[in-house]
Amino acid sequence: MSQLHEECGVLGIAAPWRTDVAHLAYYGLFALQHRGQESCGIVVNDDGLFSYHKDVGLVNEVFSRPVLESLPQGNMAVGHVRYSTTGGSGRSNCQPMVVNHIKGHMALAHNGNLVNSSELRRELELQGSIFHTTNDTEVISYVITRERLRAPSIEEAVSRAMDTIKGAYSLVVMSPSKLIAARDVNGFRPLCYGVRADGGYVVASETCALEAMGARFERDLDPGEVMVFSGGEVRSIRDHCGTAPRRTCIFEYIYFARPDSVLDGVSVQEARMRAGERLAQRHPVEADVVIGVPDSGLDAALGYARASGIPYGVGFIKNRYIGRTFIAPGQAFREDLVRIKLNPISNVVRGKRLVVVDDSIVRGTTSKRFVDLLWEAGAAEVHLRISSPPFLNPCYYGTDIDSRENLVACNHTLEETRQLIGVDSLGYLPIDDLPYLIGQTVHDGFCDACFTNVYPTETPKDQGKSRFEYKISERNRT
Amino acid sequence: MSQLHEECGVLGIAAPWRTDVAHLAYYGLFALQHRGQESCGIVVNDDGLFSYHKDVGLVNEVFSRPVLESLPQGNMAVGHVRYSTTGGSGRSNCQPMVVNHIKGHMALAHNGNLVNSSELRRELELQGSIFHTTNDTEVISYVITRERLRAPSIEEAVSRAMDTIKGAYSLVVMSPSKLIAARDVNGFRPLCYGVRADGGYVVASETCALEAMGARFERDLDPGEVMVFSGGEVRSIRDHCGTAPRRTCIFEYIYFARPDSVLDGVSVQEARMRAGERLAQRHPVEADVVIGVPDSGLDAALGYARASGIPYGVGFIKNRYIGRTFIAPGQAFREDLVRIKLNPISNVVRGKRLVVVDDSIVRGTTSKRFVDLLWEAGAAEVHLRISSPPFLNPCYYGTDIDSRENLVACNHTLEETRQLIGVDSLGYLPIDDLPYLIGQTVHDGFCDACFTNVYPTETPKDQGKSRFEYKISERNRT
Amino acid sequence: MSQLHEECGVLGIAAPWRTDVAHLAYYGLFALQHRGQESCGIVVNDDGLFSYHKDVGLVNEVFSRPVLESLPQGNMAVGHVRYSTTGGSGRSNCQPMVVNHIKGHMALAHNGNLVNSSELRRELELQGSIFHTTNDTEVISYVITRERLRAPSIEEAVSRAMDTIKGAYSLVVMSPSKLIAARDVNGFRPLCYGVRADGGYVVASETCALEAMGARFERDLDPGEVMVFSGGEVRSIRDHCGTAPRRTCIFEYIYFARPDSVLDGVSVQEARMRAGERLAQRHPVEADVVIGVPDSGLDAALGYARASGIPYGVGFIKNRYIGRTFIAPGQAFREDLVRIKLNPISNVVRGKRLVVVDDSIVRGTTSKRFVDLLWEAGAAEVHLRISSPPFLNPCYYGTDIDSRENLVACNHTLEETRQLIGVDSLGYLPIDDLPYLIGQTVHDGFCDACFTNVYPTETPKDQGKSRFEYKISERNRT
Amino acid sequence: MSQLHEECGVLGIAAPWRTDVAHLAYYGLFALQHRGQESCGIVVNDDGLFSYHKDVGLVNEVFSRPVLESLPQGNMAVGHVRYSTTGGSGRSNCQPMVVNHIKGHMALAHNGNLVNSSELRRELELQGSIFHTTNDTEVISYVITRERLRAPSIEEAVSRAMDTIKGAYSLVVMSPSKLIAARDVNGFRPLCYGVRADGGYVVASETCALEAMGARFERDLDPGEVMVFSGGEVRSIRDHCGTAPRRTCIFEYIYFARPDSVLDGVSVQEARMRAGERLAQRHPVEADVVIGVPDSGLDAALGYARASGIPYGVGFIKNRYIGRTFIAPGQAFREDLVRIKLNPISNVVRGKRLVVVDDSIVRGTTSKRFVDLLWEAGAAEVHLRISSPPFLNPCYYGTDIDSRENLVACNHTLEETRQLIGVDSLGYLPIDDLPYLIGQTVHDGFCDACFTNVYPTETPKDQGKSRFEYKISERNRT
Repeated sequence: MSQLHEECGVLGIAAPWRTDVAHLAYYGLFALQHRGQESCGIVVNDDGLFSYHKDVGLVNEVFSRPVLESLPQGNMAVGHVRYSTTGGSGRSNCQPMVVNHIKGHMALAHNGNLVNSSELRRELELQGSIFHTTNDTEVISYVITRERLRAPSIEEAVSRAMDTIKGAYSLVVMSPSKLIAARDVNGFRPLCYGVRADGGYVVASETCALEAMGARFERDLDPGEVMVFSGGEVRSIRDHCGTAPRRTCIFEYIYFARPDSVLDGVSVQEARMRAGERLAQRHPVEADVVIGVPDSGLDAALGYARASGIPYGVGFIKNRYIGRTFIAPGQAFREDLVRIKLNPISNVVRGKRLVVVDDSIVRGTTSKRFVDLLWEAGAAEVHLRISSPPFLNPCYYGTDIDSRENLVACNHTLEETRQLIGVDSLGYLPIDDLPYLIGQTVHDGFCDACFTNVYPTETPKDQGKSRFEYKISERNRT
Repeated sequence: MSQLHEECGVLGIAAPWRTDVAHLAYYGLFALQHRGQESCGIVVNDDGLFSYHKDVGLVNEVFSRPVLESLPQGNMAVGHVRYSTTGGSGRSNCQPMVVNHIKGHMALAHNGNLVNSSELRRELELQGSIFHTTNDTEVISYVITRERLRAPSIEEAVSRAMDTIKGAYSLVVMSPSKLIAARDVNGFRPLCYGVRADGGYVVASETCALEAMGARFERDLDPGEVMVFSGGEVRSIRDHCGTAPRRTCIFEYIYFARPDSVLDGVSVQEARMRAGERLAQRHPVEADVVIGVPDSGLDAALGYARASGIPYGVGFIKNRYIGRTFIAPGQAFREDLVRIKLNPISNVVRGKRLVVVDDSIVRGTTSKRFVDLLWEAGAAEVHLRISSPPFLNPCYYGTDIDSRENLVACNHTLEETRQLIGVDSLGYLPIDDLPYLIGQTVHDGFCDACFTNVYPTETPKDQGKSRFEYKISERNRT
Repeated sequence: MSQLHEECGVLGIAAPWRTDVAHLAYYGLFALQHRGQESCGIVVNDDGLFSYHKDVGLVNEVFSRPVLESLPQGNMAVGHVRYSTTGGSGRSNCQPMVVNHIKGHMALAHNGNLVNSSELRRELELQGSIFHTTNDTEVISYVITRERLRAPSIEEAVSRAMDTIKGAYSLVVMSPSKLIAARDVNGFRPLCYGVRADGGYVVASETCALEAMGARFERDLDPGEVMVFSGGEVRSIRDHCGTAPRRTCIFEYIYFARPDSVLDGVSVQEARMRAGERLAQRHPVEADVVIGVPDSGLDAALGYARASGIPYGVGFIKNRYIGRTFIAPGQAFREDLVRIKLNPISNVVRGKRLVVVDDSIVRGTTSKRFVDLLWEAGAAEVHLRISSPPFLNPCYYGTDIDSRENLVACNHTLEETRQLIGVDSLGYLPIDDLPYLIGQTVHDGFCDACFTNVYPTETPKDQGKSRFEYKISERNRT
Repeated sequence: MSQLHEECGVLGIAAPWRTDVAHLAYYGLFALQHRGQESCGIVVNDDGLFSYHKDVGLVNEVFSRPVLESLPQGNMAVGHVRYSTTGGSGRSNCQPMVVNHIKGHMALAHNGNLVNSSELRRELELQGSIFHTTNDTEVISYVITRERLRAPSIEEAVSRAMDTIKGAYSLVVMSPSKLIAARDVNGFRPLCYGVRADGGYVVASETCALEAMGARFERDLDPGEVMVFSGGEVRSIRDHCGTAPRRTCIFEYIYFARPDSVLDGVSVQEARMRAGERLAQRHPVEADVVIGVPDSGLDAALGYARASGIPYGVGFIKNRYIGRTFIAPGQAFREDLVRIKLNPISNVVRGKRLVVVDDSIVRGTTSKRFVDLLWEAGAAEVHLRISSPPFLNPCYYGTDIDSRENLVACNHTLEETRQLIGVDSLGYLPIDDLPYLIGQTVHDGFCDACFTNVYPTETPKDQGKSRFEYKISERNRT
């Protein structure tokens, strides 16, 4: 019954006329699938009439042909992919959320995490409100709805709601006649929009989804900005812009986002390659080949290789067919499991001094497993390089980091970690190099609280117990 | 977005200890399946922790073995079967409804229809409430939740809510520690409870479900009664008892309920046989055999046969395997469809003068179809007898009668109807004989507004347009 | 790896032109569903090109809308429903079987059981044949194929194959250009054909399927007859007719067939009513009401009531929603299970002297259970009447009777059985009355080996062990 | 009804004792999934009793948890993944095939394509054989079965069958007590075996599957070799070894096999990198970055980069979530489709002179699509390099190459192809460089008939029409 901490992806479409917006949203969700694999949904707005489908599963599982075809044509749509589920029925927590209120109905898709949702929830319940879900999204729906009672328009209600809701959110709201996008004042989570050749507008968490929906990137929403797409026009409400410093999540670049996306003007792939380059300078080593851990370590490995002059190689084959429904082996064959997912290429590894680049270490157990495979394959030396600093603190803005007690860096020195994983040397990216990832020289414009413990906002009051309930399992990261 | 008019079934279990209440509810829902085939659900309460599953489909479709086994053991449970769905996503309207409020969480299962839900909804929305569904159940949840802010207990909140909600409802409410059953002041919809050998209590819409859950019938709830099952004890709150005349729905006896149920002291099967007997007296005819239209016409046919002395025969075989997913034929084979569902037995029909008994006529088209089959099979004469009076008025209490414009009796004289259906004679049960069905001599204690236009309560203010949107399709009745 | 003993249903369609024969077969299979609920299939012949779908499950489970619509139009079709499965993969044993041979391809649907399939199988294997299934159908396919090497036509090959295959079979064979129906020389299993208004021909196990496919019954196939439907014409090959005495399975009338079917000129419902009448004469008793055990005991009960003058009543409600996927309760609620399936109507039973009519007793356990329910419901006396003689012998012709060691009549006297079931009196239909069921006075024209041990053919050589592996579970009969 | 040309993967397990061989096979099939995505299956041998499951779909679709768990433990297993399906029911063509014959039963999994299956089929049909499938596997089953009538053992029967069946095959056969692997005399398709730490033996198409099943690679089977695994021992029958020259399929290295596999002593990844190196020497160009087309062009691109000194870059992101069930857009959004599957990274492409490396060109349409994306993303120059020679001829050994009329190289000059695809320059790997891929200097030891028209065996007699029915759709290759 406590709040969730989720990574998600959102999108919205405002077409110039009635068309197959469900298919368009479907393609956009495919491009955002890496941001959330637990559930997904699409709401179509056909001139005020909402139709929707959402369920637990990947986009291709939830949207079979009959389901997708059962959604009507429309002039607007909202879509969502979601990372984590909790409690009894994951299905009730699927998004987008659709609610009815006194001025009509509304669909909401939300990425992020509020820091004051418990207080808001309690306040609302004290006035007799009922909650069907444990989502922040339902809290946001209520706040917008209450503002709507007095506000002259839905966009104004959204804007006023931003005075009340605190924390990280990139939000897409659809009323019967308008599509509204909003980004929190710190701009923790990405949100951008683009234009299609047919004049339609498209909003999405990442630029790769704009492209998948056939749109040309226009620009990122500014922190605090509310954009209204209606009647073929765009309008920006900037009342909250500039009220707080920009704090883009640095981990979006390191791990979350897709390499072909460009977030707040910075290419994700370039950020990763730069992290690799910096690693090469900070932790040089003599070696024969640089390999990355698929998929998120590959770009940093290429950066390391370029900067160090050591040849880049493909050292692991990742099995592309293993998905959500993969059945883990019983005790009898447990030892074989890693190899099914990630198999080293002997010819690359045998007798070689390896630099292995990965994006992060959580508990250390996954790292140990792939390192073991390299030793078995005959590696001469293994030097592990991590393209981010050590995780030391919880995230309250929508990233599910494991609890401190499980984070290897909270309980071990660097040397202990190196021994635990079993490598010849271990090097993390220094905190001071983080600005370099996004082409900056000063430490500003991004949130790195998980590394530094410097939080840009107030933090949740009831963070104790519940922090430990929701966490990324390390297994999902490899 | 308007309210629904639904027939449903509800049940609740309060076990003396942690046990497999989900299985028990599953068996109970099988016994109530005839009251609603569109969706169903079970909520298990394991010492305050709710787990649930609900979906569109029959009980055996929604509750596959893995799903049923995924529900934990518990000490309480609530179950629901639902008749009709509306709009975009039937799934969101499935019951029981589970909501969180300031004092905890609550599950509700509801059978009936409020007459003031539109007003209540508007009132709530004006205070900033949001609605996820178009169910009366969500309105009731809100009213109870608001009363709960001031009431000393959940049962008291339910009791106070009964001052606000008007119309027909048989309600089962589950809080983390209590099971509460409530029946509206007129007692439109049935609700009874029983005791299991292990000391557990069981609430259900019909006695047949008590038996399926291994319980001995204890008694019907009185109109206006609230019963609280908690800690192995039963308590009755009778504040609303006697504040309005009893108005049991007469159509429960004629069509809805299962023949082995006993509602408010009257056997459903006996009521139907009495209707048949009375028909024999009111509309006698010389004939060779009396046959019933399966399944709901069979008991009345037996009653007619007994009273008239004409032999009872089985004239139709109903295909038991045709269900929700049956694929209706294209135009090419349309004419064969009725025969697949209902095939006359030639040896019984050929050359015979038949009395055919059915429970009601809605549009007349279904009646015409089975009568045609009898003529094709060589019937010498067909005399149709209907064990209820003609439908002339809408029901606001949870029965989905077709709109007046489609009711054959609203637009045709008896003679026109007879010709339209194509029978030698046609006889309805006179309104004055309705008391006889439930063993009374005076016209009191039941609601027959659909026949008489005498409504026991206020009627909905916005009854116009929306009346025509939700209706029983006649095809579902055969 | 031993042969199966199965009850099945078959059908075939020869349309005058390309039309939606898959839908037609689908409706026919619904009408035959009572003959086999384990698997089903349809093969469509579109001018020589075969398309098919078959799987484990009921017709409405196997043929979802997309599956049915994926079958093309055609001018012929064959369909099958199957009772029992065995061994690893039930799916591979689904019918119709489709095979390729030197002269083209062929689809076969078969109902019955050969008595020499083991010998034939061994012979074929000694020549290098391979078998994919454990079906008699595959043996028949081979025999026809081998005859086809020399025979001038497929129908001649079928006719010649009948010299080799021994036992019970009603067979529908489809070649690229012909539909062929064949019935064994004793005519154990029913098979008939009819004509549609469009001139198409339809073959089926029972007349009720002809009607469901919109056809008028033409006549039963004679024992030993082969019929060829091709190019809008019918041709009969009577080479094997009259070579053996007719031996229609009497149990088709007592239990298998649908009451609205007419098999070899005798109405199934009438046969059952006659059995009831005869029972009333043989085992009269003073009682208040006669009730039948649904569904197959109902007609005999009506016959008993008519002949005895004791009123007929409906004493049990059978739950129509319990199907293949019903989840039996754990030990905790085992005692409630029967009541979920079959609930007595208290008002009919309480304080009454009952005559209860059922079609047969296998192990006696099912009988005991429903009798217990009657006692619990307050019956004053229970007199059980069985509309068939006691089962004493195995069936080799396609009926899965339990092994002798489990048959209550093999191991108990009448009095012991009466006590075991717990009734005041027990009466079986005498063997001598069996002719009366089908309107005969002499004991001829039907097979009653399961009662009499008089087998019309040789019996299988390896009957020992395998007899006990395949049996009807009594639970499926109620 | 003609033969199939399929790429497939096979595996077999002979465990030292009864264990969970189904899970082991499941992991092995995941490692072979790239060899066939249309269907898959596992047969478990539990001391002579076979249980199996096979169906259309990916391994994770066909083997859900309940299905996998329904397979018993055993001491042997055979598994199969299959590429292509044909005709009415793909399901009946799924492998492994399980058949019964006079000496027991047998399971077969087969990769390859016979060149004389039509003749063998006809011969067998003339003797009265029936065929359930259109698989070569069924033909092979028959041939082995017939040999088994006279041969003293199943392995001897397999060996003798090799005198009759001609063409490409890597075969795994399981009898009740033995696991047998056989490779055709030319060794077209790969097959190897390994040993597990528990002493069990494992056979598979590729070494990556050995590793996934926890086995250490032992060695490849020699062309013509038959290996028998039984009672913890291995035995080799070498009667056919050396009777024909080795002709490993060169396209296994270029495209089919997984980069971490080592086939006949040559690392697949190294072969691809060498192809890239050679391309750099044969078709050098001045450029800024070398990118590969995922996934099979990546290694060759890395080889090109290394040999040329031009930096290697990641130019495309391939969407990992698009699978079999992906719903292609209607006409409205067709233009967006490629981008959903394969999105260029603007920062890498914009303003750059690109060398783009892919493994092959079939029709040219796919190549044109990804090249167009690069132009749209702002590429300054695009130089396409193909790591194989042009396809000019059909393959009769199990590779589904498109028909000649669709092969761009059959109908266009190099210059025409370059213009059609729209690149600045186009270079194929010269035929003379093929030996270099597998570390040879002379043109021997492999089959390259698809490039050279030099077939190592007789070719099928009825190659005309049917060649055009079964082909790889180019869309599946990107």
